[in-house]
Amino acid sequence: MSRIAYVNGRYSAHSRASVHIDDRAHTFADGVYEVILVVNRHMIDLEDHFRRLDRSLCELDIPRPMTGRVLTHIMNRTIHLNRVVDGIVYLQISRGAAPRNHVFDNASLTPGVVCTARRLDVPATSRDVSGVEVITLPDTRWTRVDIKSVSLLPNVLARTRAAGRGAYEAWLVDGEGFVTECAASNAWIVDSSGRLVTRPVADGILRGITRERLMTLARELSIEVVERPFSVAEAKQAREAFLTSTTSLVKAVSRIDETVVGNGHPGHVTCRLLDAYLDFARHQAGFPDGHSRVVLG
Amino acid sequence: MSRIAYVNGRYSAHSRASVHIDDRAHTFADGVYEVILVVNRHMIDLEDHFRRLDRSLCELDIPRPMTGRVLTHIMNRTIHLNRVVDGIVYLQISRGAAPRNHVFDNASLTPGVVCTARRLDVPATSRDVSGVEVITLPDTRWTRVDIKSVSLLPNVLARTRAAGRGAYEAWLVDGEGFVTECAASNAWIVDSSGRLVTRPVADGILRGITRERLMTLARELSIEVVERPFSVAEAKQAREAFLTSTTSLVKAVSRIDETVVGNGHPGHVTCRLLDAYLDFARHQAGFPDGHSRVVLG
Repeated sequence: MSRIAYVNGRYSAHSRASVHIDDRAHTFADGVYEVILVVNRHMIDLEDHFRRLDRSLCELDIPRPMTGRVLTHIMNRTIHLNRVVDGIVYLQISRGAAPRNHVFDNASLTPGVVCTARRLDVPATSRDVSGVEVITLPDTRWTRVDIKSVSLLPNVLARTRAAGRGAYEAWLVDGEGFVTECAASNAWIVDSSGRLVTRPVADGILRGITRERLMTLARELSIEVVERPFSVAEAKQAREAFLTSTTSLVKAVSRIDETVVGNGHPGHVTCRLLDAYLDFARHQAGFPDGHSRVVLG
Repeated sequence: MSRIAYVNGRYSAHSRASVHIDDRAHTFADGVYEVILVVNRHMIDLEDHFRRLDRSLCELDIPRPMTGRVLTHIMNRTIHLNRVVDGIVYLQISRGAAPRNHVFDNASLTPGVVCTARRLDVPATSRDVSGVEVITLPDTRWTRVDIKSVSLLPNVLARTRAAGRGAYEAWLVDGEGFVTECAASNAWIVDSSGRLVTRPVADGILRGITRERLMTLARELSIEVVERPFSVAEAKQAREAFLTSTTSLVKAVSRIDETVVGNGHPGHVTCRLLDAYLDFARHQAGFPDGHSRVVLG
């Protein structure tokens, strides 16, 4: 876990890192966040995370607390202070602290910034990973899940319910039986023609950074990507299923509720995509040849 | 505002009161709260607030951090330390602090408790108050608004949007054009027969403590209460409209969007109910005769 945390201008021991009780993230879930993958001390797809962060802030009318350059410096320093080689950086920005009142006045608020970093095992190759089980649950979230806010209580409940049933994630399902996304990741299937299917961003999901990257990588591998909603029934009969996120990377789904997906092992397309993603991340992280599959961390 | 705050076992200067950055209320909106009216240093309808608090905790599987007796002691001490005669007590309970992970394990968590208190002007009589304007907005919240959680981002956005248009509150509207409740209060109308109309609790709203109390008081005044959804169109043509909450008490609505309600002044029924509520609160607070309309504060 993180040992040093950045909070509002100061680096301090994580154990003593605190925010004011009136921080609006604490009282109102009035804040946003990003989780960024770190490979070889390098933040992956940082510009895309910044673009999404800016959008989240803009949609909530939270002023940007500092430039991307300063934020980058803080995140790099937090990575360094926590001696993270492979891992994640967590960045949270709240509207700031003020006497509790739903109505905010940005003029009297200074956004709060928290940054932590911790290690995470990044697999060397798809051969090192196995599939996970997921359960399906009704999507009970608010309508603005396109904003990456800390208003995550339904996600917490869904993922904990999944864990209680021995599953890794919960796939959330809309009123028509279509999968929206997972509690903390995006959902994908491979159809009988070998095409990737995932729900469009315009249709009530978060624009996942790993999701976006994977689309580009899939096209480079000449794998067709179709953005359309898919049902739970279709997913259970799919050739392969997987999920994507910064921390989960590309994770094969071997079981949905009680139904085994494919032969119950990570599928060919999923493995190709995970390997392509690992290669891409290593390349961006400065390894001269991603394909060399250097074992990291 | 509050000058002394209780946080996890300690009373300290409000300005320095803080919680850990990993408090799950801060990272996940994983906490609940209550706001309790204080009249003459006495908490009004405390048992009802405790009953709702227990339900919120139970629905989120957050263990009760301490007995009602201890919580009562903390709240009374916070009222005393802040020299509140008339005002509100704010009590927030989070699941506790732990390294960030959607999945919670209550066994390794100690719930976090925050308590603050501040003064609030309680009117002496309905003659002292005027009506407020409200706007209507789509209800974008999650499906579990029956839980009084700090997952309040949509409420924050709605109420701030109302304030931006010079209004006091936002009335939230479901997909069928029916009012659910307000961003931070319950919504009521008086129909052409003089009956009170408010949405049933079973129909996707929070069980307001002031709402419940007002139902009892209305029946004592032989005012009929009908629990059914009402539309925005019906509200705009209603004889009277008002809203209820701990901090707003019973507040007349003089305008909904661009439409003046009734003659634009607090209606007869609304005023009777506010006076009945003030009498009730004073009586519970220990004044021998609520009807004497002693000016408080």
